[in-house]
Amino acid sequence: MTTRADGRADDELRPIKITRNWLDHAAGSVLIEFGRTRVLCAASASEGVPRWRKGSGLGWVTAEYAMLPASTHERSSRESVKGKIGGRTHEISRLVGRSLRAVIDYKALGENTINIDCDVLQADGGTRTAAITGAYVALADAVASLGVQKALTGSVAAISVGIIDGVPRLDLPYEEDVRAETDMNIVMTGEGKFVEVQGTAEGVAFDRAELDALLALGEKGCADLTKLQLEALGS
Amino acid sequence: MTTRADGRADDELRPIKITRNWLDHAAGSVLIEFGRTRVLCAASASEGVPRWRKGSGLGWVTAEYAMLPASTHERSSRESVKGKIGGRTHEISRLVGRSLRAVIDYKALGENTINIDCDVLQADGGTRTAAITGAYVALADAVASLGVQKALTGSVAAISVGIIDGVPRLDLPYEEDVRAETDMNIVMTGEGKFVEVQGTAEGVAFDRAELDALLALGEKGCADLTKLQLEALGS
Amino acid sequence: MTTRADGRADDELRPIKITRNWLDHAAGSVLIEFGRTRVLCAASASEGVPRWRKGSGLGWVTAEYAMLPASTHERSSRESVKGKIGGRTHEISRLVGRSLRAVIDYKALGENTINIDCDVLQADGGTRTAAITGAYVALADAVASLGVQKALTGSVAAISVGIIDGVPRLDLPYEEDVRAETDMNIVMTGEGKFVEVQGTAEGVAFDRAELDALLALGEKGCADLTKLQLEALGS
Amino acid sequence: MTTRADGRADDELRPIKITRNWLDHAAGSVLIEFGRTRVLCAASASEGVPRWRKGSGLGWVTAEYAMLPASTHERSSRESVKGKIGGRTHEISRLVGRSLRAVIDYKALGENTINIDCDVLQADGGTRTAAITGAYVALADAVASLGVQKALTGSVAAISVGIIDGVPRLDLPYEEDVRAETDMNIVMTGEGKFVEVQGTAEGVAFDRAELDALLALGEKGCADLTKLQLEALGS
Amino acid sequence: MTTRADGRADDELRPIKITRNWLDHAAGSVLIEFGRTRVLCAASASEGVPRWRKGSGLGWVTAEYAMLPASTHERSSRESVKGKIGGRTHEISRLVGRSLRAVIDYKALGENTINIDCDVLQADGGTRTAAITGAYVALADAVASLGVQKALTGSVAAISVGIIDGVPRLDLPYEEDVRAETDMNIVMTGEGKFVEVQGTAEGVAFDRAELDALLALGEKGCADLTKLQLEALGS
Amino acid sequence: MTTRADGRADDELRPIKITRNWLDHAAGSVLIEFGRTRVLCAASASEGVPRWRKGSGLGWVTAEYAMLPASTHERSSRESVKGKIGGRTHEISRLVGRSLRAVIDYKALGENTINIDCDVLQADGGTRTAAITGAYVALADAVASLGVQKALTGSVAAISVGIIDGVPRLDLPYEEDVRAETDMNIVMTGEGKFVEVQGTAEGVAFDRAELDALLALGEKGCADLTKLQLEALGS
Repeated sequence: MTTRADGRADDELRPIKITRNWLDHAAGSVLIEFGRTRVLCAASASEGVPRWRKGSGLGWVTAEYAMLPASTHERSSRESVKGKIGGRTHEISRLVGRSLRAVIDYKALGENTINIDCDVLQADGGTRTAAITGAYVALADAVASLGVQKALTGSVAAISVGIIDGVPRLDLPYEEDVRAETDMNIVMTGEGKFVEVQGTAEGVAFDRAELDALLALGEKGCADLTKLQLEALGS
Repeated sequence: MTTRADGRADDELRPIKITRNWLDHAAGSVLIEFGRTRVLCAASASEGVPRWRKGSGLGWVTAEYAMLPASTHERSSRESVKGKIGGRTHEISRLVGRSLRAVIDYKALGENTINIDCDVLQADGGTRTAAITGAYVALADAVASLGVQKALTGSVAAISVGIIDGVPRLDLPYEEDVRAETDMNIVMTGEGKFVEVQGTAEGVAFDRAELDALLALGEKGCADLTKLQLEALGS
Repeated sequence: MTTRADGRADDELRPIKITRNWLDHAAGSVLIEFGRTRVLCAASASEGVPRWRKGSGLGWVTAEYAMLPASTHERSSRESVKGKIGGRTHEISRLVGRSLRAVIDYKALGENTINIDCDVLQADGGTRTAAITGAYVALADAVASLGVQKALTGSVAAISVGIIDGVPRLDLPYEEDVRAETDMNIVMTGEGKFVEVQGTAEGVAFDRAELDALLALGEKGCADLTKLQLEALGS
Repeated sequence: MTTRADGRADDELRPIKITRNWLDHAAGSVLIEFGRTRVLCAASASEGVPRWRKGSGLGWVTAEYAMLPASTHERSSRESVKGKIGGRTHEISRLVGRSLRAVIDYKALGENTINIDCDVLQADGGTRTAAITGAYVALADAVASLGVQKALTGSVAAISVGIIDGVPRLDLPYEEDVRAETDMNIVMTGEGKFVEVQGTAEGVAFDRAELDALLALGEKGCADLTKLQLEALGS
Repeated sequence: MTTRADGRADDELRPIKITRNWLDHAAGSVLIEFGRTRVLCAASASEGVPRWRKGSGLGWVTAEYAMLPASTHERSSRESVKGKIGGRTHEISRLVGRSLRAVIDYKALGENTINIDCDVLQADGGTRTAAITGAYVALADAVASLGVQKALTGSVAAISVGIIDGVPRLDLPYEEDVRAETDMNIVMTGEGKFVEVQGTAEGVAFDRAELDALLALGEKGCADLTKLQLEALGS
Repeated sequence: MTTRADGRADDELRPIKITRNWLDHAAGSVLIEFGRTRVLCAASASEGVPRWRKGSGLGWVTAEYAMLPASTHERSSRESVKGKIGGRTHEISRLVGRSLRAVIDYKALGENTINIDCDVLQADGGTRTAAITGAYVALADAVASLGVQKALTGSVAAISVGIIDGVPRLDLPYEEDVRAETDMNIVMTGEGKFVEVQGTAEGVAFDRAELDALLALGEKGCADLTKLQLEALGS
């Protein structure tokens, strides 16, 4: 049997740390850590909605994800300097936004907008899933600060799973991620339903049995994260 | 039991039409139609590879997806005029590229680059799955024109599935797509393995049983498309 | 005496094909072919006009021209990916727009906007003249769909002419175009008046006699195209 | 008979003033004035050519045209601030470049590049024709400074003509330009041959007789300008 | 004792020339020369203010600085062509704007906007200080043209100072500027107060005594310029 | 006598906290806090230098400054999303780079590049001075990691000073900064020499006595910061 470099069981999360109110200005903010991955999630609330939604009585939630240049193993160049946003950044920003909107009741939110910013301070695999998991907590605080708790219809968490050397594993750090034959990100509600399932074969296509194994791991990981989110919010 | 507006069975594809060699200049080109969805797929071959791959002896395959302004129900604005590519375009271009690279042997391709262009001439749902399915046929022709057929290790096709009014359905046209509770795109090899699985809850999260039903539909749809691809290439 | 590679007389058009209603969504759409040159022209009608024209009671017509990457002999890079529109694209978009506006009565159009999109699917010389000639037919259909036929005050067509090996010729394909000493695009109304005359010496300046010969050829070509436009609209 | 606001005959140029060596750094520079239109033309010479031309033994000439924000009647916004160049600017830059290249022998120029900058300090109609006419003089000085006078195979000048209230007129100031039914820019060599002919109907299409009248006026205007260029160059 | 290449005393300005009304359209315009440095300053007045200031009863003054490509020793590339403004340009535009706003009473200006354009026609050091000094005169004319002279609460001028070969000097031309150990730009009101002080060590940090010497030189230079501004304005 | 909202003496710094090695990947990294202002400074070392410096034997140091959207009181929009960098960001990035280069011996650094990233996680005034002060410590660690300690010729620190209600004060938090009549940023070496002096009158011009008072305060603040930097570096 293979062992993981950090000694974890195959279905075990890395140490997770959720620090609420890491910032003073945002309505909600969280520094979330999945092992060495560190993402700063901020939820800023403002009155009003984008033009296309005005007068509807409905609110809006949107998200932006980005990585600091020095967050990666090799420094990556700054997207503002390049003057355009890369495809990966776009893709993850959209994923985070959709995931959070899955637990929002726009009517109860009223014509308010919540902007979620997920900035990766340090990247070691799983940044998008940490972003979603942390952003949910920041969102909950922002919704509470607006006094519209009913706008939150549930919770949402996300985790990565993958097959490394033929073995399905939970919560991949960078060194496993780059070696994974298959890589999947799973977003689930606190009630155990799926919000997003995104699986990608890296090199070798995967069969139905492998897919099922990954889904089961993802279900366990999201359930574990849900508990940690509730603890963080409960205190 | 609900019926589909176009009279199809729930697990039935729209009429699929694959026209090879629609263009004179590209090494491979296909006009593919999934009902009223019409995508022009071109595979252009050129010697050499991007700088980061030079001297490796390996080839490269990359893809760009775009929609013509008048392809959509309401005219959409042109991305070149806006000066930037939207997140959805980025996301689909990356998906098409990854899907095709899953059946490429870079070593056998040698230091050649194949550029895949998928331009949507008319959109009626399923444009990204039509793009992947058509692009595979154009790619096969381009690989043949280079005389490196071994560079193709298999075939790849893609289809959309979704749950509409509680019923899982195959190959959604626009009017079903906008009403879908869950929307999934499945990319599979000709051998029935998964390359990409991307499922998104639109409004309501989905459970494991629904996910399983969608995967089964997708497997059937991709198998049907594989046959049509082989026929197109066999003639 | 030199002969043309495709056997045409010097004052003869390539085979012209105009297919109306090639798209389902646009108010008017035409696939126009000048030999192997193939341009998809769509006219989309929408209520309202740009801000600077609001309240004037006058309509607006504007055009955008673009080439698909695989339309050219060597694949050309995508302007949306480069993030900016090249000078040639700008120039032709403006030419198409001016040419069509020459036969529009803004008052009769009312505060409606018609967007013309001319996308070159395959390029073999004369793409801008095919675009104008096809766009006129799409525009006529769009105007009719709005029920404001009086907004169209005439017809417009365009053709290229040039001097190759000292001989003035009509409707240049790519292989003649690159060898032309002088290259001219002529846009005329159905009544035989000039809307645009754009002549460029490529390498050798031209004298007045040559200019006159080219104008005469252009007059003939536009008259021929006018007949074909009427036939297409008459059916 | 109508008279012109500035009292000129219909075939008379505005007062033309050509000041050579207006700048200290550029190889050639000219401040050219067509009445109140004032364009600063600079020709900068540098060793080497663009990458696509390296090793060919041939030189290159390219041009950029721009307007200062305060040069126009109403201040216009700065293209560098908008982050993109407008279609009109692109179009004129290309026209100026083509016009000057018509009198260049690339072989004699050797692998040198000459950049022409035409910046409109004050605009009162005819800026593109003033730019071409002045740029020729700057180019001649730059070519001389490189010691390759043979690279210049002739001279080039440009003038605008138009039909105002039914009367063909030469060298239109802004107030005539905006009222012109037809507007034409003519670029000719010193030997009286055409380099560019660009005529545009503004509102009303023009017939062959009108076209001929405009061409004749243009021929006269360019001949007059050629004399002034030669005088300025002291030859 | 070292002497300056142009024979000036260390505390002496270059020949300064201020030509008012150099342009016909702008409300105020000045061609200012500091030796061979030549900057065209235009002040355009328009009714209304930016959106964020509407209804405040207050006016606005803003500035843009730019260099023509051929103004520098080596031709520099055009920012509009590059599609973005460089940091240096941004920095100087902001400096010019702030300097002029220091002598504006927004209330007295009323809801009008004055756009200042400073375009460097020729650069030989001190372009930003020439820009500020000339722009003040153009601004004064623009304010007068609006009939709101009270909006101007004082005058403003700017000069560069620096330490070259250990000697503090006033008004550095390019050849001194590039050799300066310390470079400082000083903006002062006509009453001798400071608006901006920007000192930068180039290579070697400077001590308090050197700073004091530079400030004293700057005070003298600004006082001299103030006189020249008043003369130019004829008061 | 006025008191400061946070009870500090007029010449007293806010609580300063310097946390080294806050990141795992960068050669040097520091989280620096000036009261509630929190800036993450990372110094990434890489072999090689920009093209224009190759073969010179000299190294290079460059810096980028940016603010996270949620760092400010009101969320600010993301520059990568806007597609361009604002003038303020450009200005500060340049200031940070110049300040650090003042203590670098390029020869001793060899052909290596150090990229400094200063990302403001939370802004409460003085972000640019915190960035410089923290970046110096990160730079020292990066230089040490390259084994070229001699490349560092001294230390550098920066502080803001300003006049609030007529009183000169050190290290302004946001609420003082917005009320300041004069605002100055001072960058000094550990030996007490000036690297940068940037003073700006906000509304009211300042006289020489006020300038002297601000310089004295800045000298004290930088000396205090120098001590804290040395302590942090353990020397």
